[in-house]
Amino acid sequence: MNKGFLVIISAPSGAGKTTICKRLLKRKPELVYSISTTTRKPRRGEKTGVDYFFLNKQEFEKKIKKNQFAEWAIVHSNYYGTLKHFVDRNINAGRIVICDIDVQGGEKIMKVYPQAVKIFIVPPTWEELEHRLRFRATDTDNVIQRRLKNAEKELKYLKKYKYCVVNDSVSIAVKHIESVINSEKLMISRLKNINNFFKKG
Amino acid sequence: MNKGFLVIISAPSGAGKTTICKRLLKRKPELVYSISTTTRKPRRGEKTGVDYFFLNKQEFEKKIKKNQFAEWAIVHSNYYGTLKHFVDRNINAGRIVICDIDVQGGEKIMKVYPQAVKIFIVPPTWEELEHRLRFRATDTDNVIQRRLKNAEKELKYLKKYKYCVVNDSVSIAVKHIESVINSEKLMISRLKNINNFFKKG
Repeated sequence: MNKGFLVIISAPSGAGKTTICKRLLKRKPELVYSISTTTRKPRRGEKTGVDYFFLNKQEFEKKIKKNQFAEWAIVHSNYYGTLKHFVDRNINAGRIVICDIDVQGGEKIMKVYPQAVKIFIVPPTWEELEHRLRFRATDTDNVIQRRLKNAEKELKYLKKYKYCVVNDSVSIAVKHIESVINSEKLMISRLKNINNFFKKG
Repeated sequence: MNKGFLVIISAPSGAGKTTICKRLLKRKPELVYSISTTTRKPRRGEKTGVDYFFLNKQEFEKKIKKNQFAEWAIVHSNYYGTLKHFVDRNINAGRIVICDIDVQGGEKIMKVYPQAVKIFIVPPTWEELEHRLRFRATDTDNVIQRRLKNAEKELKYLKKYKYCVVNDSVSIAVKHIESVINSEKLMISRLKNINNFFKKG
């Protein structure tokens, strides 16, 4: 059995990260999706342990105090976070955990898991990203400008990652991520049964 | 265009390295095979620049003195070596160069090319390697014993490499090496046009 590991996938908004992660998990059911914990109310059909782990504010804050989160943040007045316990349990069982996370969360989680595989998804060019962000036609100019500024800031995080996957085509991007994961599994530092190859006694 | 790089593939004798490298190069004609230089006489049908670069002893020794080899060795009274110029020229043109080399040569060449991708091929288990080496039935017990001792020594080089590919099936092993090469191409440290993704001006 190989050692398990964490894969952190981040991207600037508009790069297509979530679509790619969903497709990846569908193609490789042996990968474990890192389920976030949140204090936001479950939407219709959402189940705890599937979509999110749902906690109330008090429970969440207790876990923050006990340092049980690999990262957490407040978004629109709700807490969101990744429990170390969830990641550790799966990694220790030899599984590969896929964490689809924004750049700020990614930066925090890679401090807790320095051995994680860090993948950054980018659009083919800045012009293409601009085009995609502008294309959501319902938005006002103000919203678009803010989004572009944001994407520009997010892109600067690229250098904190190890691999860069260009999302020109979703299916090719997914195959690239599969290559990265397969290749990382072959790293000698991730091998468990290295002594199998050697003469006994 | 990506940066080119060198891939060093080594293995203990009997692991099936040469078969795997041949298959890999057939499947991926864009990869460049690292052609060795030698002072041994060309065999029937061998061409300089295809099978080897053939030089006489004097020419070879001149290049040694000029420090033009990334590695060289004497085998059965003939010189064999890898010219830096050949590797550099291809890497600088953005190509990926595959160097099929024994562990001693591998150790030398990785000092000259520390950024190289280092792959070690192993048999599934020590018992399997022993079986394969014994199976060449024409050999005397002495020859077999020497070969096993050698393989044991060669296996110790594993830890100098980054990736370990188990040769249980040749076609799977080749696919694993393809994954590694693809994945290494996606490494941010190997990207050339990183500024494409950023806003201009």
